[in-house]
Amino acid sequence: MIKIVVDVFSGDNPVALIKGTADAVNAYPDVKIVMPGDPDLLSSELGKYEFDRSRLEILPAKEIIGNNEVPTTAMRQKKDSSIVRGMTLLKTDDEAQGMISAGSTGAILCCGIFIVGRIRGIDRPALAPLLPTANGGHVCLIDCGANADCRPQYLAQFSLIGTSVMKSVFGIENPRVAIVNVGEEDHKGNTLTAEATALIKKMPVNFVGNMEAREALSGNFDVLVCDGFVGNVLLKSIEGTARLVSEGILSRLKSVAPDLADMSLIEKSVADVMENFDYNSNGGAWLLGCNKPILKIHGAANVRTVPNAVGLVRSMILADMVGGISAKLKELGK
Amino acid sequence: MIKIVVDVFSGDNPVALIKGTADAVNAYPDVKIVMPGDPDLLSSELGKYEFDRSRLEILPAKEIIGNNEVPTTAMRQKKDSSIVRGMTLLKTDDEAQGMISAGSTGAILCCGIFIVGRIRGIDRPALAPLLPTANGGHVCLIDCGANADCRPQYLAQFSLIGTSVMKSVFGIENPRVAIVNVGEEDHKGNTLTAEATALIKKMPVNFVGNMEAREALSGNFDVLVCDGFVGNVLLKSIEGTARLVSEGILSRLKSVAPDLADMSLIEKSVADVMENFDYNSNGGAWLLGCNKPILKIHGAANVRTVPNAVGLVRSMILADMVGGISAKLKELGK
Repeated sequence: MIKIVVDVFSGDNPVALIKGTADAVNAYPDVKIVMPGDPDLLSSELGKYEFDRSRLEILPAKEIIGNNEVPTTAMRQKKDSSIVRGMTLLKTDDEAQGMISAGSTGAILCCGIFIVGRIRGIDRPALAPLLPTANGGHVCLIDCGANADCRPQYLAQFSLIGTSVMKSVFGIENPRVAIVNVGEEDHKGNTLTAEATALIKKMPVNFVGNMEAREALSGNFDVLVCDGFVGNVLLKSIEGTARLVSEGILSRLKSVAPDLADMSLIEKSVADVMENFDYNSNGGAWLLGCNKPILKIHGAANVRTVPNAVGLVRSMILADMVGGISAKLKELGK
Repeated sequence: MIKIVVDVFSGDNPVALIKGTADAVNAYPDVKIVMPGDPDLLSSELGKYEFDRSRLEILPAKEIIGNNEVPTTAMRQKKDSSIVRGMTLLKTDDEAQGMISAGSTGAILCCGIFIVGRIRGIDRPALAPLLPTANGGHVCLIDCGANADCRPQYLAQFSLIGTSVMKSVFGIENPRVAIVNVGEEDHKGNTLTAEATALIKKMPVNFVGNMEAREALSGNFDVLVCDGFVGNVLLKSIEGTARLVSEGILSRLKSVAPDLADMSLIEKSVADVMENFDYNSNGGAWLLGCNKPILKIHGAANVRTVPNAVGLVRSMILADMVGGISAKLKELGK
């Protein structure tokens, strides 16, 4: 049985995520879920759904850490919050092997690093979404926001972590690793990318060079390495541009609608395409580099999100991603 | 008469741009154009079009600086290149008031800084496109690639330059200036944005705080300040995502086409929307902070690009943008 902690209470929409968690129990017969949070609300909401109750355990936690709290302070003061209880279980219970949280990025990062702990040899855990690409695959963007200021060796470590993820989740043999840069040529970039490139070349990864941001979702790369500031800008501009373009196209088509047969078919087609740019349907962002896999889902995630997220965490546990990274780091003498 | 230098020879497609230059002479009766480059090719190509020859002058230049040359070396060695001849004229001829070049970013930057020279008080000129926004306006993204590593004071100077541009080109009274950041809250960001924010708050600009990348084209901001690495990633990811989304939508609509009345109408509508994301139709990127306005157009620019670009440079000259920046810097005691 694979034990996964699911914290829905730090998000905006716990009720929908509780239903999603019941769905996840039904979807994965080899998974057992622990839900930290308000036991009364959990019991009454879970009571509405059909699922195998022997595979869902409630871990009472009365507090919630909100989006606007200072993470380090909140972590220390709210010992009985769903996220602190969940992360503490992840740390102390050998059976608990991974966690999903709808909490704030800051709280997840802080609890992940200080409660669950870093893999030995990893300086800075990173946030990494797996983004869908144009050819139907995925690309791991690491870091997308955990570390706004990075040293070159962090980026080198990200290249190793990203490689392990793409191997363990998607079975890719030799993930193609690129560094996000302002040009394809070797001499392009800033001081950080120049120094990081030299270090990545010494790592046991399939480094293919620089990538310009317009190619991020081309499918030509499996792992995109950058500092958390650049990754966050890249991620959010993809999101914003996708919305703007699809809304622009829909509105233009509506203005010529009298001449178009079936506007609802067009709307549905556009919505289908946009689903690829919707992080709710694509899991979320991994916090990678901690001792157990942790997946952040969006605070406004919907009911579909939890089963998807449980499936992703389960694959990462089955592939022993953390063990793989540790082994590589040992080989490197870290 | 407004004298503008137009260098088409450093691009991939000089012949199309020569036609575009003849169109520009026709479009602006108060503009005189100087074209540095191969006089034989220029004469024979220009001979094909109708325009007022008294307002177009050829400046012989036999060499071309290519995209793959090291800019500083090429600038020193190719004194007879179209871009060096053009920039030298811009420097030495008081009547020449602005320049357009299809050359490489590196060559334009290098010649702009070392030949034309910086405005006193500006440490680093910056590249800045004026991007169309969702509500039909424009936003100035500064820097989008000139300075991969920036000090905080460069960003503060960019806020001043960007403000002048939006005032002079679009007549916006109090351009809203934001810093590109990873969150809206004040404490978000990296060391650079924190230090730059403190400096921008002291500048005579309408600073409205942080902007997340997903809002870049929302129309809520007039000037977006960032280092050249981040700006380049933002610009290229907008470009790449727009293409990916529109292609995805078109291909999805084609797959349901048997049920749609008029595919060609749909294709035309999508193309109309995408024109907003096409830098050929939107002028190009300004090199700002030099003693005269310089506009870089894409090396693969098309015939429409030149008249648009001439119109933009003309507005900036008429508004005396450079004089405005100098005056502000003097007030600040720089």
